[in-house]
Amino acid sequence: MPRTSYVNGRYVPHGRATVHIEERGFQFADGVYEVIGVFGGCLIDGEEHLDRLERSMRELRIVPPLRRTGLKLVLWETLRKNHVQNGKIYIQISRGVAARDHPFPAAAESSLVVIASSGSWPSLSEAKTGHAVVTGPDLRWQRCDIKSVSLLPNLLAKQTAIEAGAVELWMTDEQGHVTEGTAANAWIVTSDHEIITRQTDDRILPGITRHTLIRLIEQEGYKLSLRAFTVGEAKAAKEAFFTSATAIVKPVTSIDGDSIGNGVPGEITCQLIDLYFNHMYQTRDHYGH
Amino acid sequence: MPRTSYVNGRYVPHGRATVHIEERGFQFADGVYEVIGVFGGCLIDGEEHLDRLERSMRELRIVPPLRRTGLKLVLWETLRKNHVQNGKIYIQISRGVAARDHPFPAAAESSLVVIASSGSWPSLSEAKTGHAVVTGPDLRWQRCDIKSVSLLPNLLAKQTAIEAGAVELWMTDEQGHVTEGTAANAWIVTSDHEIITRQTDDRILPGITRHTLIRLIEQEGYKLSLRAFTVGEAKAAKEAFFTSATAIVKPVTSIDGDSIGNGVPGEITCQLIDLYFNHMYQTRDHYGH
Repeated sequence: MPRTSYVNGRYVPHGRATVHIEERGFQFADGVYEVIGVFGGCLIDGEEHLDRLERSMRELRIVPPLRRTGLKLVLWETLRKNHVQNGKIYIQISRGVAARDHPFPAAAESSLVVIASSGSWPSLSEAKTGHAVVTGPDLRWQRCDIKSVSLLPNLLAKQTAIEAGAVELWMTDEQGHVTEGTAANAWIVTSDHEIITRQTDDRILPGITRHTLIRLIEQEGYKLSLRAFTVGEAKAAKEAFFTSATAIVKPVTSIDGDSIGNGVPGEITCQLIDLYFNHMYQTRDHYGH
Repeated sequence: MPRTSYVNGRYVPHGRATVHIEERGFQFADGVYEVIGVFGGCLIDGEEHLDRLERSMRELRIVPPLRRTGLKLVLWETLRKNHVQNGKIYIQISRGVAARDHPFPAAAESSLVVIASSGSWPSLSEAKTGHAVVTGPDLRWQRCDIKSVSLLPNLLAKQTAIEAGAVELWMTDEQGHVTEGTAANAWIVTSDHEIITRQTDDRILPGITRHTLIRLIEQEGYKLSLRAFTVGEAKAAKEAFFTSATAIVKPVTSIDGDSIGNGVPGEITCQLIDLYFNHMYQTRDHYGH
């Protein structure tokens, strides 16, 4: 089936979906985005992702191309046209087309691109397999709280991870603390059963899956601490994992080649995967159609 | 006259020149670029810009879409089709189109976009007018030596400058030293007639106009020091200016509202403008057609 994407008011065959070469998203990375998981036809944590998208636009003073209700209609229609029941939807909003010049253009209209993709979610047992991460310096800019398309440092770090046989690279700040992964928030669990993830500040993206998981963790009464941790603490931890909208909760069983805990996905990590899957099923059963 | 741009092997009407929405330059800022001044039909410092473009590609492991001789043919043809005698030419090379995923794609072909624009250069007397700059923290990533399209921090800083009534924002590192402007290298001249600009490292772009000007300065026997300077030093300087391919050499007469020297373009700065104009005329007379 030919795929259809949405570009600035039109649904177009994906292969012919284009933006102008003077789109500021292309020439300047002057845009923001979201990736939202789709499960059983439902957007996972959809409202929270759209909240963050609106915040990103506010921070960069990009005028929303549509109100939220209009944007949601576009998302649903793009999913419908592509028959996506499970997978993800990508939303990019850029400052628009203008003759290349650094200052914000006076007259450009923000652009909106929406791409839907089908893909299957892992089964519960597939989700509970271990992954390797490596670490390296965080070379990114100082406003990582804005979900912008200025992602080159993330790409380079991700590529380093892949070539090292890992799935993610956890980045470290000047103090040796882990900030986050290239596309995921980083978590550890101590031998004292304390779950730790970095506090939100301008050095990390405030992850939506992170945020939802914090809520679930608090509901269940686990010990939770929002603070930075070092690579040394992470390697000495009993468990480790990372979260993102597409990875959900992914067990980490080695860091820089050193085994974490027993070298198998941790007990609490697996409980959190159960919790998140349960949250996804509840969302689907509540909003599904 | 309708403009023509070059996109991936084709010359197309500028208004209909597009790239795919999954071009990595659009989704990830995964691309590099150059802007080269055109004077009397000649590329100013053309070979040096192409050297830097090739270095940027090597650093990011982007495969050149064309050899240099082929790229130069495209540049000349784009200038010719647009009748550009004076102005600039923009070259962007991105990693190409692939389904959105952070790691370098196995099969994508690098993309090439070339845009030529006519514009007049200032007269010598116009060039010798003063400009205001402001200062602010450098929020950019740690590999500013790569001329990538990951320019969002530069845009935000430039916008801050414009809204403060200035033309540039000089960014400062953690030690309070000026790194560079948002799209230009920063220079000062002390009361001792010493010309100072920051050494090249991974915190600044190795400017081509900066590089050529250093050569001209050394030929003329001025005192030159390649080192970082603070905002305090800059405000206490006798003269200040900035350089870029399109600004050439621009006098700075105030920083954060404080006058520099007598508040008019400095004597040595004006001599350097003469030197650079002379270099441009020599290039034109030597290579012009």
